[in-house]
Amino acid sequence: MTTTAPPTPATSGTGRAPLAPAAPTTAAAVVLRPVPSGAARTTGGFWHERQDANRRQAIRTGYEKLESAGNLQNLRIAAGTATGEVRGPIFMDSDVYKWLEAAGWEHGREPDAELLGWIREVTAVVAAAQAEDGYLDSVQQVRGGGARYVDLPWSHEHYCAGHLFQAAVAVRRGTGETGLLDVAVKLADHLVATFGPGGLEEVDGHPVVETGLVELYRETGTRAYLDLASWFVDARGHGVIARHGKEPTYFSDRVPVREATSPEGHAVRAVYLTAGAADVAAETADAQLLDALVRQWEGMLASKTYVTGGIGSRWDFEQFGDHHELGPDRAYAESCAAIGSVQWSWRMLLATGEARYADLVERTLYNAFLPGVSLAGTEYFYVNPLQLRAGAHTDEERSPAHGRRPWFDCACCPPNVMRTLSSLDAYLATTSADGVQLHQFATGTVRADVAGGVELAVSTDYPWDGTVRVEVREPGAGEWELALRVPGWAEGATATAAGEPVEALAGGYLRVRRSWSAGDVVELVLPMGVRVVEADPRVDAVRGAVAVERGPLVYCVEQPDLPVGLLADDVRVRVAELRGASAEHRPDLLGGVSVLRLPVHRALGAAEGPLYRPAGDEAPRAAEEGTVTVPAIPYYAWANREVGPMRVWLPRA
Amino acid sequence: MTTTAPPTPATSGTGRAPLAPAAPTTAAAVVLRPVPSGAARTTGGFWHERQDANRRQAIRTGYEKLESAGNLQNLRIAAGTATGEVRGPIFMDSDVYKWLEAAGWEHGREPDAELLGWIREVTAVVAAAQAEDGYLDSVQQVRGGGARYVDLPWSHEHYCAGHLFQAAVAVRRGTGETGLLDVAVKLADHLVATFGPGGLEEVDGHPVVETGLVELYRETGTRAYLDLASWFVDARGHGVIARHGKEPTYFSDRVPVREATSPEGHAVRAVYLTAGAADVAAETADAQLLDALVRQWEGMLASKTYVTGGIGSRWDFEQFGDHHELGPDRAYAESCAAIGSVQWSWRMLLATGEARYADLVERTLYNAFLPGVSLAGTEYFYVNPLQLRAGAHTDEERSPAHGRRPWFDCACCPPNVMRTLSSLDAYLATTSADGVQLHQFATGTVRADVAGGVELAVSTDYPWDGTVRVEVREPGAGEWELALRVPGWAEGATATAAGEPVEALAGGYLRVRRSWSAGDVVELVLPMGVRVVEADPRVDAVRGAVAVERGPLVYCVEQPDLPVGLLADDVRVRVAELRGASAEHRPDLLGGVSVLRLPVHRALGAAEGPLYRPAGDEAPRAAEEGTVTVPAIPYYAWANREVGPMRVWLPRA
Repeated sequence: MTTTAPPTPATSGTGRAPLAPAAPTTAAAVVLRPVPSGAARTTGGFWHERQDANRRQAIRTGYEKLESAGNLQNLRIAAGTATGEVRGPIFMDSDVYKWLEAAGWEHGREPDAELLGWIREVTAVVAAAQAEDGYLDSVQQVRGGGARYVDLPWSHEHYCAGHLFQAAVAVRRGTGETGLLDVAVKLADHLVATFGPGGLEEVDGHPVVETGLVELYRETGTRAYLDLASWFVDARGHGVIARHGKEPTYFSDRVPVREATSPEGHAVRAVYLTAGAADVAAETADAQLLDALVRQWEGMLASKTYVTGGIGSRWDFEQFGDHHELGPDRAYAESCAAIGSVQWSWRMLLATGEARYADLVERTLYNAFLPGVSLAGTEYFYVNPLQLRAGAHTDEERSPAHGRRPWFDCACCPPNVMRTLSSLDAYLATTSADGVQLHQFATGTVRADVAGGVELAVSTDYPWDGTVRVEVREPGAGEWELALRVPGWAEGATATAAGEPVEALAGGYLRVRRSWSAGDVVELVLPMGVRVVEADPRVDAVRGAVAVERGPLVYCVEQPDLPVGLLADDVRVRVAELRGASAEHRPDLLGGVSVLRLPVHRALGAAEGPLYRPAGDEAPRAAEEGTVTVPAIPYYAWANREVGPMRVWLPRA
Repeated sequence: MTTTAPPTPATSGTGRAPLAPAAPTTAAAVVLRPVPSGAARTTGGFWHERQDANRRQAIRTGYEKLESAGNLQNLRIAAGTATGEVRGPIFMDSDVYKWLEAAGWEHGREPDAELLGWIREVTAVVAAAQAEDGYLDSVQQVRGGGARYVDLPWSHEHYCAGHLFQAAVAVRRGTGETGLLDVAVKLADHLVATFGPGGLEEVDGHPVVETGLVELYRETGTRAYLDLASWFVDARGHGVIARHGKEPTYFSDRVPVREATSPEGHAVRAVYLTAGAADVAAETADAQLLDALVRQWEGMLASKTYVTGGIGSRWDFEQFGDHHELGPDRAYAESCAAIGSVQWSWRMLLATGEARYADLVERTLYNAFLPGVSLAGTEYFYVNPLQLRAGAHTDEERSPAHGRRPWFDCACCPPNVMRTLSSLDAYLATTSADGVQLHQFATGTVRADVAGGVELAVSTDYPWDGTVRVEVREPGAGEWELALRVPGWAEGATATAAGEPVEALAGGYLRVRRSWSAGDVVELVLPMGVRVVEADPRVDAVRGAVAVERGPLVYCVEQPDLPVGLLADDVRVRVAELRGASAEHRPDLLGGVSVLRLPVHRALGAAEGPLYRPAGDEAPRAAEEGTVTVPAIPYYAWANREVGPMRVWLPRA
């Protein structure tokens, strides 16, 4: 790992392209580096369609929502250009920033005059609200009567700042304009002057300022931002929140980051913090901190992650549950927590180059992030359970029983989804001293500053088909290595390079090193058979049940696909029968999905007898009844027809 | 059912004894009637010990807590005799009233000068706070600036009133003094003048005023109180809460009581409401309303009740979950909800005479109410999960991982436990036109106004031993029927009357009708073998697991009883082996319990491999390992040594 070069923003390293999100400086201790913003891009297929809907529909709707929900008006009131009461939760400004971030990346993907107009307009509203000394938080400025940092565990003042920093960097990189960056720098300088050793020794109850400060450091080169981020990371776990009379677990403050073994407390807070800590570890070449993060990530994978990749099982306080507390019906699995998990895993991938981190990014994007947004792209789930029973109802706004919603009183998820889709291209590829690595599979192009400049064209029908074809368009000069991730689930993958077989072991990278010619093709073929999985027996809630996967997708059984008289609640399966299930692509269904034709059975007799009954020597089995074959759909697509019974975990017959 | 007699308080019917709680008037349409307060009493054994601890320790501690937590000071501030800020949640007054109720019943059980002094002192504090026109709610009077009923869905003004009414009745019946009753009548008259058709057509978000008003009607004969209770019951479910912009389910306001099929929303609210509705149904001889309540009660039993009798599975908003949403690890099962369930079932028992209601009272008292209080009687669980895993921790005040606590910021449970133990004798016996019925088994005496006056002496080591011996001390004149409940779980029970065998079918009443002589004995012998039960397969969370019961008790496996190396999380069982498990009485353990000696196995290999793994054709089984026999303890006694791994549901090996 390199620790000697000066911490120069990586822009100067490439000399020609703006940075992708979370792009380490040239001095950072990372194994992999993102390709520049715009250098990797989808041009068609699965994710491209979602990015299109995001660009054309969601970001436009978001702009309108920021007005109608009062976010922009709050800022105007703080600026003194409007009067009235501020509305909404204390972190209303952060929705504006997340939307600005999305708009910034989106403009970087493809310039758009209308979008740029909105960015300028919203930036002006934000800038006008900023206090002379840089402080900015509209709700606190108005509702809090101008009092600052009096209840930092709850006030989200740094949280809003962190999102502003990331937005300012995105707008700078995506539009070249510096208006929002000026606001961010002014606020960051204020934070540097106010917080840290000898100043206010406090941390925000909700991390995110850490990633924001590091990004701002990367953009500006101002070392003080990195130092403050580093201090915020290490200040936690030493009683700073407890001093306010709060119990610290929820706030990721029970244990120092360097000592924790598993994330706990509020899930979004926990993974935003570890993502920020990973940024700090990279930029300060802190191997001990990185080790601690590896341990926590492994702890999360070992006992606190749903099969979908979703995290945070508890509705109450949106927390990680205890080890193996992963009940499917009340899975909270907040959409924002999935996004935070992707951000964390991405940074771990850059730091280590290990495929397992990209594997979790893939699982989480398809099965924990994507279910959070409707096929139309404009309605959102806050919460993503893995089971809904017949007769479910509740009066909570964020209940999945209501279906996806266009916005929420606490609207953290919608603009978070927007910024993730707008920056999704960044997760496709990286470069290293060896060459180019492809981590996620999508039809598109990848340019890289390797061997004097190379360009790749990727074509694939992923996630429906397992063939990924990579054509070298610009071969560069001399030898370099092309690496394609072979997912951990892809046992039996095969590959060819220029027609010759190459090894493709699951759970790592297929690597081909050579001098390339234009038109050379590497083709990876991932096995797309049905996979049946079960959980560690300590996950009590899914004992005796299995989940069905194909490719990167987790599947579910949903009521609209079942014959009359068969309730999703009562579906039972035999594993041996499931293994031979076939896939069928249905372009007409749910925007085009491959369904799995699952042989299932109906549990009989469940409705008879009392709720509790004498136990037989053996566990009861579903009565024999003719097998019926039903289509299972990708879990991400559920609740797009009607909201009703659905289950990912299928009990054994 | 009688509907013609005037609605006279039942006191005049007996002419000699104060009423028990929830004693219907002579006009009420009920099958069974409580014996007068004090006519049934425990004199020794299981419940008597707990009542003793409640009397000697808990009620004294509660009196001190009302001072230290600020409840009494709030009332003094409202009265103008003290200054300062009121403290605590909006329903702080209700804790005072629940404590007064407990003290009132307790004084009725056995007069005590110190207790009477406290009652008088606290009554004076309450009375001084009451407004001239009868309004009373200290927090609202001070913190709310005197504004009344502006946010009744949340303000708990009627809720506090309901608890005051019940307390006033208890103090009147237990001490003969009318000071608190005068306050209650003044407030009730104010409510009658303010609410109902043509007045404020609003309901409190938290029911309990309904039972309180009916009790006050029974005590005073003032029909307007019954009418208002009746109006409150029927007003719900017609959008009164929704008018305030609230979603109605939580508040038991989504569906009219007469149309509901299953309780839903906030569990305590739901069952306090149905208890009040049952009172109204009885006093107004409303068979249609009673039918609706039978349907709801059956709905609760069919899919929304834990094996412990606990109800309300969701932590978020303390709600009933969906049908079959009964996960053991995150079971909320609030202690107060168990109390409300007992109150509801008791009223259903009076109305119908059906043993199933007394069965649920028994199950709930032993296994859902009693776990809520420590063996010492002075620490409380707010929440009663059926499983705690290794490594569990959380920062929530009400988390069971902290162990029982002496009080809570929201202290509804402690005084609720106190009043329940102080009035527990009332659940032992009833009378009817036929004779005397014994519903719960405890060593003690029962006097009844039957056949000119009879007295029974009950002796039993229940719940450890299944023999219940009833001796007729005063035989009365002429024939009458003695009925003993034979619990639904007691298949194979036997009985004798004066030495002759009589039939004792489980799930009903053993009935012996004859002319009795002093010294006649009826003996019921309930089978005390180990019972192994499993759940309806739709309760996904306990699929493949069984629970162990003996007599009225649900058992659990707790870490302190397990050998080194065997974690409660990893215990597995074979049903055939469990059936022969023996019981052993351990006077030294946990205040004296019968443990079950369970043969168990240890799950091997769980810790190896990833969280999700390829599924085999058959569900994995615990590796064969020598059986180890471990003691299971009654669930109610868990967490009295240390707080750690515990489980009620034991997975099959």
